[in-house]
Amino acid sequence: MSRIPHLMTLADLSPRQIDRVVRHAHALKRVSLPWLGPQQRTSSARLRMPSQSLFNKSIALLFSKRSTRTRLSAETATLLLGGRALFLGSDDIQLGVNESVRDSARVIGGMCQGIFARVGDHSEIEELAKHSPVPVLNALSSLWHPTQILADLLTLYEHSHSFQKPVFPIVPSTAKPKPDELAVPPPLTIAYVGDSANVLHDMLVTYPRLGHSLRVASPEKYRAPAAVWNRVVELECDKKIWWGTDPKEAVRGADVVITDTWISMGQEAEKAQRLQDFQGYQVTEQLCREGGANPNWKFMHCLPRKSDEVDDEVFYGARSLVFPESDNRKWTIMALFDFLFGKWDLPNTYEPGKKL
Amino acid sequence: MSRIPHLMTLADLSPRQIDRVVRHAHALKRVSLPWLGPQQRTSSARLRMPSQSLFNKSIALLFSKRSTRTRLSAETATLLLGGRALFLGSDDIQLGVNESVRDSARVIGGMCQGIFARVGDHSEIEELAKHSPVPVLNALSSLWHPTQILADLLTLYEHSHSFQKPVFPIVPSTAKPKPDELAVPPPLTIAYVGDSANVLHDMLVTYPRLGHSLRVASPEKYRAPAAVWNRVVELECDKKIWWGTDPKEAVRGADVVITDTWISMGQEAEKAQRLQDFQGYQVTEQLCREGGANPNWKFMHCLPRKSDEVDDEVFYGARSLVFPESDNRKWTIMALFDFLFGKWDLPNTYEPGKKL
Amino acid sequence: MSRIPHLMTLADLSPRQIDRVVRHAHALKRVSLPWLGPQQRTSSARLRMPSQSLFNKSIALLFSKRSTRTRLSAETATLLLGGRALFLGSDDIQLGVNESVRDSARVIGGMCQGIFARVGDHSEIEELAKHSPVPVLNALSSLWHPTQILADLLTLYEHSHSFQKPVFPIVPSTAKPKPDELAVPPPLTIAYVGDSANVLHDMLVTYPRLGHSLRVASPEKYRAPAAVWNRVVELECDKKIWWGTDPKEAVRGADVVITDTWISMGQEAEKAQRLQDFQGYQVTEQLCREGGANPNWKFMHCLPRKSDEVDDEVFYGARSLVFPESDNRKWTIMALFDFLFGKWDLPNTYEPGKKL
Repeated sequence: MSRIPHLMTLADLSPRQIDRVVRHAHALKRVSLPWLGPQQRTSSARLRMPSQSLFNKSIALLFSKRSTRTRLSAETATLLLGGRALFLGSDDIQLGVNESVRDSARVIGGMCQGIFARVGDHSEIEELAKHSPVPVLNALSSLWHPTQILADLLTLYEHSHSFQKPVFPIVPSTAKPKPDELAVPPPLTIAYVGDSANVLHDMLVTYPRLGHSLRVASPEKYRAPAAVWNRVVELECDKKIWWGTDPKEAVRGADVVITDTWISMGQEAEKAQRLQDFQGYQVTEQLCREGGANPNWKFMHCLPRKSDEVDDEVFYGARSLVFPESDNRKWTIMALFDFLFGKWDLPNTYEPGKKL
Repeated sequence: MSRIPHLMTLADLSPRQIDRVVRHAHALKRVSLPWLGPQQRTSSARLRMPSQSLFNKSIALLFSKRSTRTRLSAETATLLLGGRALFLGSDDIQLGVNESVRDSARVIGGMCQGIFARVGDHSEIEELAKHSPVPVLNALSSLWHPTQILADLLTLYEHSHSFQKPVFPIVPSTAKPKPDELAVPPPLTIAYVGDSANVLHDMLVTYPRLGHSLRVASPEKYRAPAAVWNRVVELECDKKIWWGTDPKEAVRGADVVITDTWISMGQEAEKAQRLQDFQGYQVTEQLCREGGANPNWKFMHCLPRKSDEVDDEVFYGARSLVFPESDNRKWTIMALFDFLFGKWDLPNTYEPGKKL
Repeated sequence: MSRIPHLMTLADLSPRQIDRVVRHAHALKRVSLPWLGPQQRTSSARLRMPSQSLFNKSIALLFSKRSTRTRLSAETATLLLGGRALFLGSDDIQLGVNESVRDSARVIGGMCQGIFARVGDHSEIEELAKHSPVPVLNALSSLWHPTQILADLLTLYEHSHSFQKPVFPIVPSTAKPKPDELAVPPPLTIAYVGDSANVLHDMLVTYPRLGHSLRVASPEKYRAPAAVWNRVVELECDKKIWWGTDPKEAVRGADVVITDTWISMGQEAEKAQRLQDFQGYQVTEQLCREGGANPNWKFMHCLPRKSDEVDDEVFYGARSLVFPESDNRKWTIMALFDFLFGKWDLPNTYEPGKKL
């Protein structure tokens, strides 16, 4: 029997594998969307079915914290793959409370064909993967958030035409990309302004390997933990990362500006302190103009959004890719579910039980 | 792209559209019931499938309050239409708390193909409809409860033979309605005795337009709010509505007597006051006899029932249509899901964002 | 119309019916497992579908208490049978609080095609069965736990080769059972060491009728209630039951040793007292050696497990059948759902409303 293909972070995948997941997500999206419109407008006889690799299969969603986007993506994607997602929140199961994580992993893995887990401390999902007989996919942990960065990547691929560097004299291109083709975006400068948390961590181990430069501004006290930074260095991603504390410096030349909430779930007690620490970090037109971002810069945010970290003008404006980005959570999670849970077809470097 | 067919209240539908929904519910019920019996008694080869307009589709059930009947109806109806309902209770999502209703509407509408929402204040579902890219159907709001009145209507259609006025000398009719035919009930006198709330509001804008007279008894202080009464007048329904405070007067000539709980969810603090206000409003055989109801009067109640508002003799007696009425929640919700979420085929007068 | 086949305890089934359910579970397991592996390894064209008796049907899971194994078993089994399980926890519905159990039973039974209920006091599920128009299956009550014992039985059947008595001189058998055949285990001595609760109760009315001897050690104050013991005597099971307080005496000659948690859900307040009462009851290698168990004894536990009642050496050791036993919850529940909810094909002696 081949090794069980768990996935904890994009650091476990090669650049080629990451590209393969993004392209598969796009293909699944294309074949699925025609099913989702009003019925009278499409003749279902001519519709193709997406992969049915989860037919008859059940996927456990172990969520110790609430998550609208991740949950809805997982439930709706599983349906399209022919299977059934079982949502188990903290009221349904409390990992490690009523029985050991080891026993729960074995029991759930004996009934379900995949585990998509949003836990608290990252060590919990490592313990799950160590004992589960079926693949475990990280839906969000204290350290990593791989599915978010895949959705961001699909969004960048889909908008790659926006990032083509202007050539003078500008002439209308006669070679427009066909809607069905997915173009790799050119090397981008991606700025992240805000809290150093799981979303940023998976960017750190991913974007540099795909040829993009990353510029991060975060207050001195919010640094990536050693477990993350070690992976960054190991993958030689640090060479393409600039890290500082000045938001304006971070957005210099940026094609994409990304931020996240300053106060994540569970950090409500630190709210006053955090609002003070992040003063001046709000993403606005003025900040990016003064910092010297590419005039055509785009904005992304993993949601849910508070108005602290980005103002309405940017968030709801023409630069904003936040809703296509949100929609893409579904398609990239669908691709991972198909490869990992349905087909066990994404072997990667992760080894359960190995010390980081 | 055609306008998104949201539905907030039956006031948004024409009488012809309401009749169409009721008939469609009956047709879906007829084709679905044979699937639901013990398997050995029916040969599935000869069974017809109901509309599969929700195949591959996900419907979000946004319920800020618990609701057994509405939830079970929605979940089981979606299954029969080929789709999947995702229940999101107040533990799963809190509209407006962690992100704006606007953002939630867009995000959920990007992943699901319909939103069936039971909110608190009616303004919340209006805000959802304003920003959702997919149809929003009102499962219950502070103002309206359209799906309940449709179930009541289907029940009245199915029992229309009970309301045929006796002609003397009574002779056995040779022209019985075939079980497959759904007869429009004759003009009825419908009495509502009790609290003026969302269930009554949708009656006020519906029954008069279908030719029925409505007689309401409610204590002086419990009156329909202006937003509702304006719609009643606008639709010229007030001409067929008698409104008073005396239950006996209300049931005079009534073919149907309807009530609802005196203490709705969230009103527990007002319990003592409400029990006092509604003294004398309990529906009983004696009340209806003394008030001069049609001797053949039928009883309806949207459930859950407390014994305050109706006694056991009536509730569990031969006049009671409460359980067929409860069963019909499923079929009328199924009809709406098919038309609104599956086919976008119930254009109506509702305009999101329009001032009431 | 035939009587609705509710099921409260295995005492309601004949030994032949119990054997039939176990064999059906094994057959469903064999046909289902090939669907559940990674897709590329199996050609779905050659896979047989399991019974689809729940196609288009919805099963209500009424759980007043959390239960990972029972819930996941029910949800995943329903999927394989073509249907949809609706989980209703104590946040979703509180039996008897907002409306009478009688009304809830009728309403739920009007929308769903089966009710799988985990209630508190056994009288609640009796009340459900009395008024439900669809079959009610006991998922766990204060008195009985029939689905657990069926899973234990399937596990014993599957391991019956382990229990063949050695014949001297031992020669390798040339007649191995084929993997597809399910052999009835020989008459076994089954020891239960621990708390006298619902799991034990269904053993008491089942194992003796299938030819097995039962040896129970439980502290004096924890005895089966009269309602249970009356059924034991009525079925003449007491003749094959030894009951005492000494764990060592209980395991004498035991082929199988079974225990359960000493502190069930809801008994947390009694924890200190119970830990004291059960001193010396922990299942260990030493206990079974000193008590004179069959050297080849096997261990079973319904989970979740605490380390009080069994040590790690036994629980995770080679004697332990706990995880196959847990997996079998799914297949035996699937068999019951197929027979009871899908086909109404398990008539039994249970009569709703009859005094015990």
